Amino acid sequence: MDLRLPGPVQVPKEIQIAMLNSFDHPMMDYRNPSFQEILLETVEKSKMIFQTKNLVVPLTSSGASALETAIINTVGPNDTIILCVVGYFGEYLQGITDHIGCKVVRVEAEWGDIVDPEDVRKALKDNPEAKAVFATHCETSTSAINNIKEIAAVVGETDAIFLVDAVSSIVGTPLYMDEWGIDIVATGGQKALMLPPGLALITMSDKAWDVINKHQCPSFYFDLKLYKKGLDSGVGTPYTPNIALVNGLLEAIKMIERGGGMENEYKRHAALRDMTRAGARALGLELLVDDSAASPTLTAVKLDNADEFRKMMREEFHIALGGGLGKLKNKILRLGHMGYTDAADMLKMFAAMELALKKSGHEVELGSSVSAAQKHWLENPNC
Amino acid sequence: MDLRLPGPVQVPKEIQIAMLNSFDHPMMDYRNPSFQEILLETVEKSKMIFQTKNLVVPLTSSGASALETAIINTVGPNDTIILCVVGYFGEYLQGITDHIGCKVVRVEAEWGDIVDPEDVRKALKDNPEAKAVFATHCETSTSAINNIKEIAAVVGETDAIFLVDAVSSIVGTPLYMDEWGIDIVATGGQKALMLPPGLALITMSDKAWDVINKHQCPSFYFDLKLYKKGLDSGVGTPYTPNIALVNGLLEAIKMIERGGGMENEYKRHAALRDMTRAGARALGLELLVDDSAASPTLTAVKLDNADEFRKMMREEFHIALGGGLGKLKNKILRLGHMGYTDAADMLKMFAAMELALKKSGHEVELGSSVSAAQKHWLENPNC
Repeated sequence: MDLRLPGPVQVPKEIQIAMLNSFDHPMMDYRNPSFQEILLETVEKSKMIFQTKNLVVPLTSSGASALETAIINTVGPNDTIILCVVGYFGEYLQGITDHIGCKVVRVEAEWGDIVDPEDVRKALKDNPEAKAVFATHCETSTSAINNIKEIAAVVGETDAIFLVDAVSSIVGTPLYMDEWGIDIVATGGQKALMLPPGLALITMSDKAWDVINKHQCPSFYFDLKLYKKGLDSGVGTPYTPNIALVNGLLEAIKMIERGGGMENEYKRHAALRDMTRAGARALGLELLVDDSAASPTLTAVKLDNADEFRKMMREEFHIALGGGLGKLKNKILRLGHMGYTDAADMLKMFAAMELALKKSGHEVELGSSVSAAQKHWLENPNC
Repeated sequence: MDLRLPGPVQVPKEIQIAMLNSFDHPMMDYRNPSFQEILLETVEKSKMIFQTKNLVVPLTSSGASALETAIINTVGPNDTIILCVVGYFGEYLQGITDHIGCKVVRVEAEWGDIVDPEDVRKALKDNPEAKAVFATHCETSTSAINNIKEIAAVVGETDAIFLVDAVSSIVGTPLYMDEWGIDIVATGGQKALMLPPGLALITMSDKAWDVINKHQCPSFYFDLKLYKKGLDSGVGTPYTPNIALVNGLLEAIKMIERGGGMENEYKRHAALRDMTRAGARALGLELLVDDSAASPTLTAVKLDNADEFRKMMREEFHIALGGGLGKLKNKILRLGHMGYTDAADMLKMFAAMELALKKSGHEVELGSSVSAAQKHWLENPNC
């Protein structure tokens, strides 16, 4: 089964082996110096992923928990937080903030569109008490990329801290935490980082730590102060870490290094996006997101009865495509091209999609999307 | 490296393979019907572990988080909770309850000893407003087993709910949730369940659900109401589950079934405990816990400079032993005999311990602890 999903993703053999080795290796004993070394090395090397010098904290939990961790460590009941909402995962952030009773100010755009940084500036001006601004980088439900660099510049002019959900963007999309001035980046391993689910990562600027250190975190398990204390002292995480996934993460980082590093990952993902959009256009499928805001990690295309189509793709061709969430349910396909995915994988997907579209009554010229995608790949200067 | 630890534990090949298969198998797509089936089957079969008919909820997180989940879903600031504290992990519970501002009533015993159920009765009488009683089943820091059955009977006479930390007891020690009348059991996978770390399980009685449903859980990620909704409707967990560990858990349960079921696990662990205690006595090592309260999953023995001894055991014989926590640091060894461990593993450990004790200046008759443990095994009616 091919996973052309917006996560979870295919797991490379190298990472599988690194995880397996940890099951009965010395490092399994998580307070043993040899695992502590691996943990600290992994934490150190993880900085590369975020383009930061800040401490990176690994959490044994899903990516969703890293978003909650960012919020509950910085804002409490009645604090004002500005949320940039452009889809299902933006709404998800409000689920968390409502749960703890924050005062929420929404900066919105249509699903498929992105937030205007000037609207964030206005929201900050109208709500000078706002403690934080939270934006989704890649809105996985629509495949749109918010302009994090510009929003960071706007927030950076104020005392508010800037939180970013980078779950489905990290590694696949340029994100320069320090250079852009982001205060918290939260992500998960099961997207472009190529890991199976179960590990989340979060990293904080000095400005964020100033807020965190003064804030009483309602959770024990997600209290970042405890993680900082454990990692700074070399002891490790306060709770039993997912040892296999820490080993898997270290191998993932080494694979990225061997593959030419982060800049190369950004180019590679952008090239996969561009060929995917070319293929989709050749099929006559409308793209949900404008070229200017299209994510390099996944591509959403409009299709009526999308879920029936996904079923055929899964059952006949063993290729899993993502479906629509919330109000886009059954109306779009989300084609994942992140992590351990190459150009040939996407060509296979288009070849199968041509057959499945034809079988479900669409007019399709066989080979048309494959050749359009191939052509784009050949002409791409980065490939 | 042999892991004679109080967790994490050796992971059987069968479970490693089940986890690996999930990395690129159809089930990897976690909203795919085939993984949903596996998840629901695993949740259903997990009831066996707790000897319950109640819904079992899998959490993608460490065992520690299941304890916090039990607390934050049932008690809030200023609620009274009675904690049974007999060691480091009892203190850990108070760390959580202090964090959220509960009024804590402690029922205590010396580290190595256990709580008197009559003291719990008195605490409930003196604090009739108490909403919950929380007890550690196996106190992993001392290897003592609290008398959960009797405490449950005492709590069952009141309106309070009874919460149990079964992290290092489940599967290894008899625990009959429904028969004894426990309201919440929280546990992790990396002990007698034979899994690598990263999965926690929690299950609730109807009496507990009545409390949970009326309670605002401060956490989104650990809100049990959301899990119940997702699992009851057949959709799955609200957040991306650790797919590999769910597959691993299903295989672990099948291994327990193939091995003769839960009653057999209880006997097998008790036999390992008894032979371990016989071997330790033959070495002249004082046992921290009385026979009447000794855990079948691990055994603590007193030893000066225990950590130096553990280092020798690890470096020369590649056997990892647990050390003391908190005020027992460097004063005890914790010998793990849970999960994927057999009698020969324990004989190997004793043979190496004899050498290491001799090399570190202790008077030891070579073969003495091995033969004492062997003898006990031969004479044990369950072996």
